[in-house]
Amino acid sequence: MQMALMVEYADAVPEVKAVYDDIMATRKTDWVNNFWKILANHPPTLARLWEDVKQVMGTGGALDPLVKEMLYIAVSVTNNCEYCIHSHSAAARAKGMTDGMFGELLAVVALANQTNALANGYRIPVDPQFLSHDGAVAEPASLAELDFTDDPAE
Amino acid sequence: MQMALMVEYADAVPEVKAVYDDIMATRKTDWVNNFWKILANHPPTLARLWEDVKQVMGTGGALDPLVKEMLYIAVSVTNNCEYCIHSHSAAARAKGMTDGMFGELLAVVALANQTNALANGYRIPVDPQFLSHDGAVAEPASLAELDFTDDPAE
Amino acid sequence: MQMALMVEYADAVPEVKAVYDDIMATRKTDWVNNFWKILANHPPTLARLWEDVKQVMGTGGALDPLVKEMLYIAVSVTNNCEYCIHSHSAAARAKGMTDGMFGELLAVVALANQTNALANGYRIPVDPQFLSHDGAVAEPASLAELDFTDDPAE
Amino acid sequence: MQMALMVEYADAVPEVKAVYDDIMATRKTDWVNNFWKILANHPPTLARLWEDVKQVMGTGGALDPLVKEMLYIAVSVTNNCEYCIHSHSAAARAKGMTDGMFGELLAVVALANQTNALANGYRIPVDPQFLSHDGAVAEPASLAELDFTDDPAE
Amino acid sequence: MQMALMVEYADAVPEVKAVYDDIMATRKTDWVNNFWKILANHPPTLARLWEDVKQVMGTGGALDPLVKEMLYIAVSVTNNCEYCIHSHSAAARAKGMTDGMFGELLAVVALANQTNALANGYRIPVDPQFLSHDGAVAEPASLAELDFTDDPAE
Amino acid sequence: MQMALMVEYADAVPEVKAVYDDIMATRKTDWVNNFWKILANHPPTLARLWEDVKQVMGTGGALDPLVKEMLYIAVSVTNNCEYCIHSHSAAARAKGMTDGMFGELLAVVALANQTNALANGYRIPVDPQFLSHDGAVAEPASLAELDFTDDPAE
Repeated sequence: MQMALMVEYADAVPEVKAVYDDIMATRKTDWVNNFWKILANHPPTLARLWEDVKQVMGTGGALDPLVKEMLYIAVSVTNNCEYCIHSHSAAARAKGMTDGMFGELLAVVALANQTNALANGYRIPVDPQFLSHDGAVAEPASLAELDFTDDPAE
Repeated sequence: MQMALMVEYADAVPEVKAVYDDIMATRKTDWVNNFWKILANHPPTLARLWEDVKQVMGTGGALDPLVKEMLYIAVSVTNNCEYCIHSHSAAARAKGMTDGMFGELLAVVALANQTNALANGYRIPVDPQFLSHDGAVAEPASLAELDFTDDPAE
Repeated sequence: MQMALMVEYADAVPEVKAVYDDIMATRKTDWVNNFWKILANHPPTLARLWEDVKQVMGTGGALDPLVKEMLYIAVSVTNNCEYCIHSHSAAARAKGMTDGMFGELLAVVALANQTNALANGYRIPVDPQFLSHDGAVAEPASLAELDFTDDPAE
Repeated sequence: MQMALMVEYADAVPEVKAVYDDIMATRKTDWVNNFWKILANHPPTLARLWEDVKQVMGTGGALDPLVKEMLYIAVSVTNNCEYCIHSHSAAARAKGMTDGMFGELLAVVALANQTNALANGYRIPVDPQFLSHDGAVAEPASLAELDFTDDPAE
Repeated sequence: MQMALMVEYADAVPEVKAVYDDIMATRKTDWVNNFWKILANHPPTLARLWEDVKQVMGTGGALDPLVKEMLYIAVSVTNNCEYCIHSHSAAARAKGMTDGMFGELLAVVALANQTNALANGYRIPVDPQFLSHDGAVAEPASLAELDFTDDPAE
Repeated sequence: MQMALMVEYADAVPEVKAVYDDIMATRKTDWVNNFWKILANHPPTLARLWEDVKQVMGTGGALDPLVKEMLYIAVSVTNNCEYCIHSHSAAARAKGMTDGMFGELLAVVALANQTNALANGYRIPVDPQFLSHDGAVAEPASLAELDFTDDPAE
């Protein structure tokens, strides 16, 4: 049961209407989904989140928008967020995610949850070789020794 | 502090050595990382997990191996698995992940964790329009009404 | 679907009735909510939890009861506990939480989930200045250097 | 081990320097903590998060800044974010949190994690009486029947 | 709302039918539960998971099958997986779990979630005495000093 | 870094000393582990938690104390609580847990985390057959149709 009433366009204050208008213009649609209609109960959160989503999930970045939607699904599945699984799967489908890609995405997410438990449970120490990949290590000398090409690495 | 001693190649039983050999042959390296040397304390888990990782994370599927590594990182960050964040970031770097891609990946993961909390906290009901994207809906009639192209959807 | 039948007052064993009586007397109500009626399937858990809740959530402590209800909601949202979000939002409302306070509470919870992911994902080392605030540091010399007044600190 | 190098002021690009300047001016300090120095590896994330934190955690809202810091700690403990526990405990201390308040805060957080598990494990259905507190219910008629005053409610 | 249609036996491809046949033969039943009928949308995941479950959850290991089902429930409650709580409670009931055992199981799970929050929140350092129990410590000399017999240890 | 100083016996107030004495007497040891020495910073939490642990984890219940320790480890691994993994593994070892049992325990915990993600990700609906096992279903008629004996059920 939802914790707040949805704010419909006709009942919205101007600052909410402005966000709704921008959502519909950006998406080229004539409707606003429930996420925003509930956030509209707290207008500063609505405005802030819409700016966040536009900045992070839009085109023009280093990652493909479809990849970003799939990363979103991976997090949402791990956190068991029903709304977000549906909304971002819909968005990913609209950007080209096929049934096969969705099945493989969930297989990776499930496997990662499995190995996370093993690594945390055994308290496995990080190999020094992995640290050379991180920005924190000034001289990645040992990196050259590694060959991860085509590596189904754990 | 780790919960079990690492099993080195020289001390391993034959079934463990066989997995180690396959890991090194598949990866074209001459070393085995700590994850497997700890799992070797329970040989059936070692053998099972290596088969899982080979099947799920290898090439030839519907998703690019680099995308799969980034999905792995997204889950590992959400679960706060230090080992897995390092090992899969190393693997993703070796497959082409740049600093900019890593920064954008974490931005998406962080945003998803934020909106997951909002959707779960407000108990937002799923829009019926989203369900038409799912395999569970036999007749995705309303799908045609949606235009998610270039959509920074939440 | 619930995992156990609710134990109604008329059907309860004496030790369960005694807890129900104390719940209603403490709350000045004539009903018992489902949480307790389900816990009553395991009477020692019912008795223990009611004592825990009375001790921790009651008046007379260092924190205001309304603040404690909001902390409860923050945890329940993060864990995605639907029952607890509803029950403690009802309790917080009865103690004075307004729509504006609830909206701001969820904004903080959502932001914290976002920055938790960033801090865990980047494995950010704790600043030594922060440790001087903790009881574990005997000589908080550097504390004097800090001025957090009016600080929207991350 | 951190996943990126810290960006020091002297080495920062102008857009990062501008955020650092605003952080120090807002906080009236002459240093920037590690969280921001790591986020600076991805300047748009740095700028966005700082705006988010200023908007959500600052003064002038419906909640007291100290309460907001304690809510932040509640989430960070539940997610096991070491950095955030330290940084926000330091901020809460600077805003007046005593040892007794911190002890009580953790007691509430721990109890909530316990009852979340019980409510989720038993799949306890939400009492209809609680729903009348939510904005989603148009006519909170039954609310008048409830008396939560001084209620250590679960 | 489910994210994929269930694959019924009559509509299944041969590799899915083979797994269904093995599930029914192993369980001595004439039906397949929804978990497998949904996984069948991605046949390699179906086949892999069924092999995993057979290996890990079957008889012949170091742990009693009923204990393994209860461990499964403990994880599923902590992750709030409704499906898994029901399916593994059904399996545990069929293997002898009584109401009293289920009540005690949830009491342990809830208490563990509570103390996990306290240990993580206070960042409690591990006692060196505990490390001597781990395989990682070569000389468990101090172990002899410990007497945990009949210990309700935290 | 710990968030509070440890309270040593010599420095403790009487109510803390009384709990320490009971811990040592119950465990037949002459030392108190760090968990309690940190909780002693908030004496009511120390006293409450020790009573909780004695009630839940002691002998005389429906579950074997070793099984309870292993359930505790399963939760602690899933929540990534380093302290609790070590302390309860030590306790479980002292009660008879072998290397083989620990390896199998982690295999179950890891598999459960994997299937939890699949069930949550696919939003798999619960089979009506499973509900008949729950107390919530008055007439478990269909139960007789099930044969879960020796079932490696998912």
